[in-house]
Amino acid sequence: MIGVALDLFAQRSPDEVSIDEIAAAAGISRPLVYHYFPGKLSLYEAALKRASEDLASRFTEPHEGPLGSRLLRVMNRFFDFVDAHGPGFSALMRGGPAVGSSTTNALVDSVRQIAYEQILSHLGVTDPPPRLELVVRSWISLAESTALIWLDGRRIPREELERQLVHDFAALTAVSAAYDDELRTLLRPVLGGEPADGPFADLATRLIALAS
Amino acid sequence: MIGVALDLFAQRSPDEVSIDEIAAAAGISRPLVYHYFPGKLSLYEAALKRASEDLASRFTEPHEGPLGSRLLRVMNRFFDFVDAHGPGFSALMRGGPAVGSSTTNALVDSVRQIAYEQILSHLGVTDPPPRLELVVRSWISLAESTALIWLDGRRIPREELERQLVHDFAALTAVSAAYDDELRTLLRPVLGGEPADGPFADLATRLIALAS
Repeated sequence: MIGVALDLFAQRSPDEVSIDEIAAAAGISRPLVYHYFPGKLSLYEAALKRASEDLASRFTEPHEGPLGSRLLRVMNRFFDFVDAHGPGFSALMRGGPAVGSSTTNALVDSVRQIAYEQILSHLGVTDPPPRLELVVRSWISLAESTALIWLDGRRIPREELERQLVHDFAALTAVSAAYDDELRTLLRPVLGGEPADGPFADLATRLIALAS
Repeated sequence: MIGVALDLFAQRSPDEVSIDEIAAAAGISRPLVYHYFPGKLSLYEAALKRASEDLASRFTEPHEGPLGSRLLRVMNRFFDFVDAHGPGFSALMRGGPAVGSSTTNALVDSVRQIAYEQILSHLGVTDPPPRLELVVRSWISLAESTALIWLDGRRIPREELERQLVHDFAALTAVSAAYDDELRTLLRPVLGGEPADGPFADLATRLIALAS
């Protein structure tokens, strides 16, 4: 039943999905739904918990190969998720009826925290200084808002945005490192391992051409 | 009374402010508060409406001088607002009890829209292509999340973050322009007017040093 509910909540805004409809789709009676879930919010939260675990799992990436390529694979899986759960993802992030519930907020925050910790582990950092924490966490929110804007009309190919977010990560960390010695020292070994034909080097070449 | 409520909602999470407290601070009776506002949500929404107008007004900036300096002045006024309304701003953006109300969501969206339109007007663009819309709107969300992270402990001087967000704007638009001819053509005249001692040129110099 949670699977059926998740599917319905993913396809349309949770506002528009009724308990009757979930019961019918799951082939069970309405009283039985209420037996397990006293209201739509609790069923929504159960579905959301499963979706959160699914999304969080997509940030797991082997520590192998260049950082830019790892991040690109993660962005690809992130957009797979956003693509499959479009209306549900928008309703959750933009504020639907269940937003503001402490359970849904905690689930969203836990996914953000997992994404944050995964990125730190790929950067090889265990005790991030405040400026690194800021740039990683704010980039995660940039990825969320980019996905939301993409969902609103899908006017840009998603592959382009997956690559763009990898470049945005490089650009935002470079901006911070340009003004902070600690960050520069921390990130130099990571970015020094990027190949000359990788996404980071391609961006650098293009930016230099743009500036001239 | 709205002014008193706004002050209380700004200083502490709206959760923690009672109608009794607002009535006492405004020097009026509890029944009189209820006469004008049937519940805390409606009073909160009225206070939020005033705060939204205040915030929106801070994005107005004369079309004079280099773009980087204009944006820096706007970021300075934005952080003045965030600084003065810290707990209220966090509660609103992170999801408090009143978030999810269609009124509060519409107010937040209207401020975002005003910020978006102001930036477009400074770029001299009236009909933005999707990639420009994306980069401007996603940078606005980056500014929001940067402010929220700053509020959580204030571990980085706010002046640094005001300047960083100006640089982030330059970096994110440069990333998009590096892969899109239309955006490059659109932004070249704007960025061509930046002075050699302005924030954009300083960033470019530092990034080139960082890359070498």
